[in-house]
Amino acid sequence: MTLASIFFGFGANHAKNLRWQVVYSLNFFICAIAAALYLAMIFKQGFTYIDGRPAYLTRYLTWTFSTPLTIILLSYLGRTSILIAASMVGADVYMIVAGFVATISTKPISNIWYIISCGAYLGLAYLLLRRYRQQAERQYPRSKKVFYRLLTVHLGIWTAYPIVWILASTGFNVIDSTTGSACYTILDIAAKVGFGFLALNSLKQLEQAEG
Amino acid sequence: MTLASIFFGFGANHAKNLRWQVVYSLNFFICAIAAALYLAMIFKQGFTYIDGRPAYLTRYLTWTFSTPLTIILLSYLGRTSILIAASMVGADVYMIVAGFVATISTKPISNIWYIISCGAYLGLAYLLLRRYRQQAERQYPRSKKVFYRLLTVHLGIWTAYPIVWILASTGFNVIDSTTGSACYTILDIAAKVGFGFLALNSLKQLEQAEG
Amino acid sequence: MTLASIFFGFGANHAKNLRWQVVYSLNFFICAIAAALYLAMIFKQGFTYIDGRPAYLTRYLTWTFSTPLTIILLSYLGRTSILIAASMVGADVYMIVAGFVATISTKPISNIWYIISCGAYLGLAYLLLRRYRQQAERQYPRSKKVFYRLLTVHLGIWTAYPIVWILASTGFNVIDSTTGSACYTILDIAAKVGFGFLALNSLKQLEQAEG
Repeated sequence: MTLASIFFGFGANHAKNLRWQVVYSLNFFICAIAAALYLAMIFKQGFTYIDGRPAYLTRYLTWTFSTPLTIILLSYLGRTSILIAASMVGADVYMIVAGFVATISTKPISNIWYIISCGAYLGLAYLLLRRYRQQAERQYPRSKKVFYRLLTVHLGIWTAYPIVWILASTGFNVIDSTTGSACYTILDIAAKVGFGFLALNSLKQLEQAEG
Repeated sequence: MTLASIFFGFGANHAKNLRWQVVYSLNFFICAIAAALYLAMIFKQGFTYIDGRPAYLTRYLTWTFSTPLTIILLSYLGRTSILIAASMVGADVYMIVAGFVATISTKPISNIWYIISCGAYLGLAYLLLRRYRQQAERQYPRSKKVFYRLLTVHLGIWTAYPIVWILASTGFNVIDSTTGSACYTILDIAAKVGFGFLALNSLKQLEQAEG
Repeated sequence: MTLASIFFGFGANHAKNLRWQVVYSLNFFICAIAAALYLAMIFKQGFTYIDGRPAYLTRYLTWTFSTPLTIILLSYLGRTSILIAASMVGADVYMIVAGFVATISTKPISNIWYIISCGAYLGLAYLLLRRYRQQAERQYPRSKKVFYRLLTVHLGIWTAYPIVWILASTGFNVIDSTTGSACYTILDIAAKVGFGFLALNSLKQLEQAEG
């Protein structure tokens, strides 16, 4: 994470034009926020015990800041209208906050908040697959494949989070706490570092296709 | 609340133009945030006991997000300048935070924070009645009555909140905790669902008047 | 603080044009937020004991809101691009949050967070001295001296904060808790009231120089 944020930070400072600078800068902050989270976890900070299971509250706090930046990154690439971008950020924050409340609630109330959080995610996915895609394809008629790939990877990674949540100790307790944490870590690297490089690659392809 | 947010959500998705879409979307998020609050209250979550009286901290947290959206809704309808809109949001957040501090403080310190919160509200009311109205009437010279009604209803409902606060267990303890909660609930429905429909109606009248 | 915010508030209301109104309004909110902090401190609210030393958590909360407004004030005066202004706000918030985590952590972990916070500050200083200055000098070619003075005063005051932190009970414990608090108070007055007047003076000089 730290290495990736240094890479993106350098990229932002030497970017050849404003669009590259924006994409690098957003990636830099996304990774820098995540790096702070993992540092806190190494120091065993920012969690509390609820019902005997450790609840990483800091995780949700950093997600509240980093996931809207990912949405802004997508919106910037797709030249999304402010209304749709703001609605996606709203749905995203709603999803994270409901997920946070689910984590600090006891069962069975936690399951209801989990469903609400998933509902917000479905709303976000709807906005991405319909409104976002529509607008992006109108802006870049020759680059439908680029956005198809971006959205597939994005939704693929993000859909894995609620699956881990419901399988881990927060849900049905099928996988233990350590495995759950490891899954989140892998997903975070994919969603932040991996997706960051995909965003850079997409911008390159958009520039080539649209000249 | 949930029903209203579903209605506004559908409206946003089928709105005939961008302006309707914005108004529907803002109403949707305002009601969706409030719906989450009432769900938390049904589950008896998000409050703590201070001086033996229950303090609904979540109420203030959701107000911090929903009331600025109401201000943005008003500003969008009145085509308010960014500076005035941002100042109104600033005064609004200041008012909510001071009210929150008043709620978690013990008496008599709580009364001083209450006065500060009321001061912020007076600042907001001043901005609405002078700057906001001036700008709105310049933008829509033929619709003075629409804004007169909007502001009367808005200020009427919002002024009732501090009155309930000072009469309830947080203030002079004239009305009991349950009645206080019921008052807030009625006010929230008026300020969110009722005001949402008024905003839709106002937009319709503005479109008719200005052609 | 309260007097200064009243002064700036009056100024905003009677400003001769939009630019003065913006600068006055930003100063008003910066001072109003700080005034609330000092009121809370007079009431002995908003702090907790960590390792036997008082930690003023509210200080960091108010800084999270007031320092971005200072950055926005600087950006407005220098007509900074949105990307650079947003990056500076991002670095600023990162710095405050890392400083907050440093304050609530036990040693030696607190020192690592302190270094991270300083790193964010160096990033912010770099953006100010290179990007911000470049853009400001391009916008106002005849007013290099105004921005030189603004940045010198700004960075001079802000650099004193981490020095107080590391000397106070949060760091090497060279100065006692009361002296540390007094230092912060003097710095806050300089950074908010003093810098506010400097910003007004700079705007005047910019208007005179550029006609």
